[in-house]
Amino acid sequence: MRVLGLDPGSRRTGFGIVERSGNRMTCVVQGAVTPKPRLELPHRLHEIAARVGEIIEQSSPECVVVEKAFYHESVHSTLVLGHVRGALLVAAVQRGVPVAEYSPREIKLSVVGNGGATKEQVALMVRRLLALQGTPQSDAADALATAICHLHRVRFTAPARAASASAERLAALLARGARR
Amino acid sequence: MRVLGLDPGSRRTGFGIVERSGNRMTCVVQGAVTPKPRLELPHRLHEIAARVGEIIEQSSPECVVVEKAFYHESVHSTLVLGHVRGALLVAAVQRGVPVAEYSPREIKLSVVGNGGATKEQVALMVRRLLALQGTPQSDAADALATAICHLHRVRFTAPARAASASAERLAALLARGARR
Repeated sequence: MRVLGLDPGSRRTGFGIVERSGNRMTCVVQGAVTPKPRLELPHRLHEIAARVGEIIEQSSPECVVVEKAFYHESVHSTLVLGHVRGALLVAAVQRGVPVAEYSPREIKLSVVGNGGATKEQVALMVRRLLALQGTPQSDAADALATAICHLHRVRFTAPARAASASAERLAALLARGARR
Repeated sequence: MRVLGLDPGSRRTGFGIVERSGNRMTCVVQGAVTPKPRLELPHRLHEIAARVGEIIEQSSPECVVVEKAFYHESVHSTLVLGHVRGALLVAAVQRGVPVAEYSPREIKLSVVGNGGATKEQVALMVRRLLALQGTPQSDAADALATAICHLHRVRFTAPARAASASAERLAALLARGARR
């Protein structure tokens, strides 16, 4: 399973693709989209959406995972963050890729085991979990952490869903048998 | 000159195309994009961006004009509005159409002559200025007002720009003459 994590920001949008096969998680690619700071917001948004769109097309992730929006101290920052998230969500849906969202607390809890972990702790845990050579930059680390959080969740919820699906199939079979 | 005005909203995004030839302004099309309310935000955003993208492609406006974001009482509403604006701005830039933005106050001042005008006053003035048969619905009226505001602005700033351009041409001619 291959997942693209995103850490939205109008100056830097971190991205990271994590692949899981069996119990092993590896980082396929990571980095940040950094539009020229002089560009006006509409053009920065377009650049971010286009670049992330390319990454989606090139790597075909099964899911795009975005950090849930949190409210900044400044309403202006919250509004700008909303713009970037809007652009990214459309980029994913446009390409038919499902979107999942987790709060910063959920992500830290899943990756570090502490919902109040610092950025440095998140980056160090991401490095360890993905066996990276170096510690990734903050935005990329947050994006990779978002992807890891989703992979952890899917691992724990998938068997339950599978079980419920097979229970449904069994019930349908029994119902069909009863009708015969 | 043909301009597409937009009034962003996650439940209803108003749109309206206004064309000016000479002193006459006419409404080419107006309405609202209303995604199914049960859709999740990413899918609503995608529907809004796709529909507005189609309108841009079909009507080739020279400019897309969006109401500047204002801060709602609720931070959540501000954030959602940011998402919709982000999706719309990308839809315009993606299609190579320039974007202009005006605050609600600027729009009301330009259309009604009063920055604190009510929604009803805006809709009535829009109806009168565009000689519409009926009063347009609130979102479409706001979108049309946004387009009208831009056309008013361009009318008053364009001659100045044209004058400065001809002054530049004259200076260039004189410089060339001096070189000869």
